[in-house]
Amino acid sequence: MRNEGLGSWPARRARKTPHRTALIHHDTTSIHQDTALIEHGTALTYEGLYERTTRLAHALRARGVRRGDRIAYLGPNHPSYLETLFAAGTLGAVFVPLNTRLAGPEIAYQLIDSGAKALVYGAAFEGLVAGLPGNCDVRTYVEVGAEYDQLLASASGEAIDEPVMADDTCVIMYTSGTTGRPKGAMLTHGNLTWNAVNVLVDQDLIADERALVSAPLFHTAGLNMLTLPVLLKGGTCVLVEAFDPAATLDLVERHRITFMFGVPTMFEQVARQPRWAEADLSSLRMLSCGGSPVPTPLIAAYQERGLTFLQGYGMTEASPGVLFLDAEHAVTKAGSAGVPHFFSDVRVVRPGLAPNEVAGVGETGEIVVRGPHVMPGYWGLPDETAAVFSDGWFRSGDAARIDEDGYVTVVDRIKDMIISGGENVYPAEIEDRLLTHPGIAECAVIGVPDENWGEVPRAVVVPREGVQLDPDEVLASLTGHLAKYKIPKSVVLADELPRTASGKLLKSQVRKHYGTDS
Amino acid sequence: MRNEGLGSWPARRARKTPHRTALIHHDTTSIHQDTALIEHGTALTYEGLYERTTRLAHALRARGVRRGDRIAYLGPNHPSYLETLFAAGTLGAVFVPLNTRLAGPEIAYQLIDSGAKALVYGAAFEGLVAGLPGNCDVRTYVEVGAEYDQLLASASGEAIDEPVMADDTCVIMYTSGTTGRPKGAMLTHGNLTWNAVNVLVDQDLIADERALVSAPLFHTAGLNMLTLPVLLKGGTCVLVEAFDPAATLDLVERHRITFMFGVPTMFEQVARQPRWAEADLSSLRMLSCGGSPVPTPLIAAYQERGLTFLQGYGMTEASPGVLFLDAEHAVTKAGSAGVPHFFSDVRVVRPGLAPNEVAGVGETGEIVVRGPHVMPGYWGLPDETAAVFSDGWFRSGDAARIDEDGYVTVVDRIKDMIISGGENVYPAEIEDRLLTHPGIAECAVIGVPDENWGEVPRAVVVPREGVQLDPDEVLASLTGHLAKYKIPKSVVLADELPRTASGKLLKSQVRKHYGTDS
Repeated sequence: MRNEGLGSWPARRARKTPHRTALIHHDTTSIHQDTALIEHGTALTYEGLYERTTRLAHALRARGVRRGDRIAYLGPNHPSYLETLFAAGTLGAVFVPLNTRLAGPEIAYQLIDSGAKALVYGAAFEGLVAGLPGNCDVRTYVEVGAEYDQLLASASGEAIDEPVMADDTCVIMYTSGTTGRPKGAMLTHGNLTWNAVNVLVDQDLIADERALVSAPLFHTAGLNMLTLPVLLKGGTCVLVEAFDPAATLDLVERHRITFMFGVPTMFEQVARQPRWAEADLSSLRMLSCGGSPVPTPLIAAYQERGLTFLQGYGMTEASPGVLFLDAEHAVTKAGSAGVPHFFSDVRVVRPGLAPNEVAGVGETGEIVVRGPHVMPGYWGLPDETAAVFSDGWFRSGDAARIDEDGYVTVVDRIKDMIISGGENVYPAEIEDRLLTHPGIAECAVIGVPDENWGEVPRAVVVPREGVQLDPDEVLASLTGHLAKYKIPKSVVLADELPRTASGKLLKSQVRKHYGTDS
Repeated sequence: MRNEGLGSWPARRARKTPHRTALIHHDTTSIHQDTALIEHGTALTYEGLYERTTRLAHALRARGVRRGDRIAYLGPNHPSYLETLFAAGTLGAVFVPLNTRLAGPEIAYQLIDSGAKALVYGAAFEGLVAGLPGNCDVRTYVEVGAEYDQLLASASGEAIDEPVMADDTCVIMYTSGTTGRPKGAMLTHGNLTWNAVNVLVDQDLIADERALVSAPLFHTAGLNMLTLPVLLKGGTCVLVEAFDPAATLDLVERHRITFMFGVPTMFEQVARQPRWAEADLSSLRMLSCGGSPVPTPLIAAYQERGLTFLQGYGMTEASPGVLFLDAEHAVTKAGSAGVPHFFSDVRVVRPGLAPNEVAGVGETGEIVVRGPHVMPGYWGLPDETAAVFSDGWFRSGDAARIDEDGYVTVVDRIKDMIISGGENVYPAEIEDRLLTHPGIAECAVIGVPDENWGEVPRAVVVPREGVQLDPDEVLASLTGHLAKYKIPKSVVLADELPRTASGKLLKSQVRKHYGTDS
């Protein structure tokens, strides 16, 4: 085997820990009915994972898949996701995970853009797949279930010796793209491996780790901050098809889960369960949280149960880990995203300037990243790639400031910044304040043209159900909490805000609808 | 910092864990007199390590050291060893650790061969250094102690931004060379990093690790299987100048040591201490053992104290980890060196044949290794380098067999193999048997010419003190334990066997002195 990539991982683990359980699969729809299933799940050893991966690779090769070809996957968390990822890596092919929340035309776009030749999909997506347009390049369709199992059963289990190097592309992951078309971030085998190594350096993962994978595997964090590092160490991943806060407590107890990953809202929902106070959480060693800083009340709620949070900041293009905040600093550095992972270089630079123009302590600038975990570029988009790199540094587009100890606090997206009378105004700061208003459910702050100031902030707010909001009262509530130039000059009431399939606010749409002078 | 190498490690750790203790230094000569010293030692934080490393790099640069230049180190385990290693890495210079057991001319050879420009040395080597020949290239001499400290105090502490890539040479480590001149194995920053990553994958190192470093740092294992992985995780290394079995128990208790590394004889000596049974070993989590398989009685002795061994096999040229035997298999696979480290490819191939001629289960062949931890070659020796590589595989020169589970047992050095009547005879097997004889202190088996069989084995034995050995009785004791063709045809009594400075048997010298027909 001359395979430096992820495709070799099942074989490398099988020679060390053939009989340990790699994956346990749960269909949460049956979780409350079938206790036996919860207790045993469908377990797959590392030897089994290696054999199934090899068989799938043979089957795909027999259907014409060659090195460099793209193999897409559309479905919930399931062993076949990882088998397809590793089988692609075994052949030197490229794995393209698709977001199950996307609509048919969005899926079609990513299939066409990536030029996927094969698609492995879950049974729930049969209808969507049947409706794919004729200009898709996909020639091989495999439905998870009987068809997939039959494919594996009839394929060879002989070892495959295809050379794969660390710099070869391993996956193309589409960024959710709040403006324009989604872009496919190419991540190499080396990129994903170095991210997993960074997790091993920063978190004390052990060989006996038992991870609960309820975050979707098609997102970079569920795959790279949780599943791959645990498989690298030889631990067990319990795959859950959909996150369910009540079932989470059951699963933690029954599988003696040691390691969980989620966004703050997932942990909030779990803590709101009636069983929360008496659930047996004694097995839990690590809670890893991404997406946004963990609110202090949430830290306190888990602290009461003896649990602390590890936090991080990252992006698909960086595989994704960039910053890491350890449990020790969760409170003293609350709101911060932490310090760089070990094998990562991170700077906060003055916006619009070269990466060597480093921002001073407390000054807001842009986060730029360099390291072996940073993508070489976007699939088929040389101009977009050139636009996000500067002197070898990836420009995150995120505004942040760094404190005297080197801890970085993410402030906002750079491109959402408003320049009002020469002052930089970050909408996120105003939005955070607006959300403390009891009558506001959601909000977005944008810049609108102004004769005197160039731009001034405008708040678009969605009232809580049954609340009658008075725009003047909303603005008055900000006085004394924000500098005068940050206080919006106008408030617009809205029924809802435009969001992507994954729930990300579409600021560009907000600007389009509410940004003209009125 | 665009430094992908070890030189960036102190900075990378200082931004994460500036106030944690990186190194504690003990001078064991004072260990029994000065309890205060034992309790506090001389502790250096990661921030301190980074500052001292930076200052040393500035001082060396001011004295003309440039990227690619070699910086040698001669002295016992001491923080200055690691500071010099990291300072060299900061400048893109190459670190050359020297074996303190070597004689003056041997040290001179390695200094001249490596073309070292600078030498940092311990006070005990003042005399040796003063007597170095005039053809040494060394221009800068720094004695550890007041001179070294003064050098650091007067140098700048400003960050150094020298580009260093993963493929740049980090150290030249001389192999002890049982034949001919020692060869300098060039190990890149990437090589050493991947070895440390392999340790993190196979061993559950934690951020709170407290390692006892009593194995010499100038050997690859003490540095790479213990010290560097612990520093990567942010743990503490307690540096001891010389191994002392009685002091070891004290140090384990006083520093709450969690991780030890040694060769079997070190662990044997510790277990023979009068305090062994009542010493508090509750802090110990990991005992890592290299050099040769841990004898079953030693496993049992430590098992009684609740301790298990991790074992390994490696070589300087592989940075050094190649095979790893976890605690779970210490007894069921006793005598084996384990299975390959995760990011390493290992084969047992038919001797003299290409690396794709893999030996079958139970068949004896040669261990060959490939992976990101394998050296690019020997310093200044292209022919010797070409001779040890075949199709990208490093030929270890070690004979081994692989079992049905993939576990590899090292048998002997290939070049020590005797071919007698067409049968391959491995001297180590005969030596192991001879050493069970109560009257034999040491032995070596070599091949001598024979008219009928081509070669036949001869045993050279050193009797235990006061024992009169009867050669015929020695041979008779082997009957029934070894196949007839393996039983030596002659026994020669000797007063001692020729060994290298590090205690390795010089088979070539044994053959020279005792290998002629008689």
